[in-house]
Amino acid sequence: MKKLKPYKKDHDISYVGSIYPVMELLTEKPEIVEVVYIHSAFIDNCGLIQLCQRHNISTIFSDRIFQILNQKENSYVIGVFRKFSGTLTSSCPHIVLVNPSDMGNLGTMIRTAVGFGIHNMALITPAADIYNPKTIRASMGAIFRMNHEHFTDFHDYTKKYPKHKVFPFMLDGKTPPEEISPCLFSLVFGSESTGLDRGFSTIGQVVKIPLSSQIDSLNLSIAAGIGMYVFASKNGLI
Amino acid sequence: MKKLKPYKKDHDISYVGSIYPVMELLTEKPEIVEVVYIHSAFIDNCGLIQLCQRHNISTIFSDRIFQILNQKENSYVIGVFRKFSGTLTSSCPHIVLVNPSDMGNLGTMIRTAVGFGIHNMALITPAADIYNPKTIRASMGAIFRMNHEHFTDFHDYTKKYPKHKVFPFMLDGKTPPEEISPCLFSLVFGSESTGLDRGFSTIGQVVKIPLSSQIDSLNLSIAAGIGMYVFASKNGLI
Repeated sequence: MKKLKPYKKDHDISYVGSIYPVMELLTEKPEIVEVVYIHSAFIDNCGLIQLCQRHNISTIFSDRIFQILNQKENSYVIGVFRKFSGTLTSSCPHIVLVNPSDMGNLGTMIRTAVGFGIHNMALITPAADIYNPKTIRASMGAIFRMNHEHFTDFHDYTKKYPKHKVFPFMLDGKTPPEEISPCLFSLVFGSESTGLDRGFSTIGQVVKIPLSSQIDSLNLSIAAGIGMYVFASKNGLI
Repeated sequence: MKKLKPYKKDHDISYVGSIYPVMELLTEKPEIVEVVYIHSAFIDNCGLIQLCQRHNISTIFSDRIFQILNQKENSYVIGVFRKFSGTLTSSCPHIVLVNPSDMGNLGTMIRTAVGFGIHNMALITPAADIYNPKTIRASMGAIFRMNHEHFTDFHDYTKKYPKHKVFPFMLDGKTPPEEISPCLFSLVFGSESTGLDRGFSTIGQVVKIPLSSQIDSLNLSIAAGIGMYVFASKNGLI
């Protein structure tokens, strides 16, 4: 086994510290786990070691690795996994993020989506690194319950999944999310800094979250959270 | 004038870098501004210097202060202001944050609240520092449009503002926010780590944002964003 080094984007493995996301990894995607590192101060009150044994996953007791990776939180367990991706489920609702740039926002949106029963996410590149430990930590491990697929162009996404009704969220839209009837939906959000460009207004029904004129826009993860909540409620996902 | 030092909680002044929040400060609260520092690379395409002149606010051209404060972003302007607080408007809706601990979340919730027409926020201490430059940056300057008042105990808040109908947001509630009729509302959210304690279920109508069982909770700022959006919509604030 190769020695674990601090994460870089071009590595074919990533890792996550802290117990909740590691348990999510072991429960949802045991087949991608390479190894679990355990600190001598770890107290196993959630059956982690038993779960590793059941899936024939190696555990290594080492305190040094926690210093090498310079984890910010007080973490006593690190799960190392092979990066994974796949295709989206064509009969389920999607969320599409066009050029998201902040890993914290990306992780939070994954966590929110899973909370509202949305398990399929397309990322239009360039995009924040979904495998970075920061993204995974912000998702609280919900990433292991999310199908995701990268596209270099939004049109490649719509070509591959033509049945979805596309709803770009834009500041110059008119329809609030409550007024959209239930359907197989794809919610599209732009980047933190620039949103979606004007071209998106012609490729779907533009949705706008009503807003006072006293702020120029909502934080991306807040806008996406509200959009997903309203669509999930109206479509019976929660 | 005292020399500006990196922010500390016990200072009676704070500051904010980057142009958008500084313009908000100058527009909304010129009376609390001590001085505006301007970098030699600053290009004034939004009338900042004129606005300072109109309000008799000193401007100091200095590049060194930007190094001293070690601003993360590329900021060419810093607004220094005296900390401010006041009392809430008793006839307007409130948001109450009980022990929020993350400055980014606090700033984001202030920005969201102002976006949804909610301009009154009670903070139950201990709470993240609302005057810290990190909070102010996360609020994008919306803090200067928000009345806020600190309380050491939630009951002191309800004693002072007894007309508001209290809605604690809790995971073991039953009523989703859409089902609440319009009223003079006070939305109450707990801390990032523990939420609200059980006692809150007896002091108001508990609201729950429906959620799949696949995540244990929403991020605080997402839950608050959804709650505020639904209440603001139903009460005609947006």
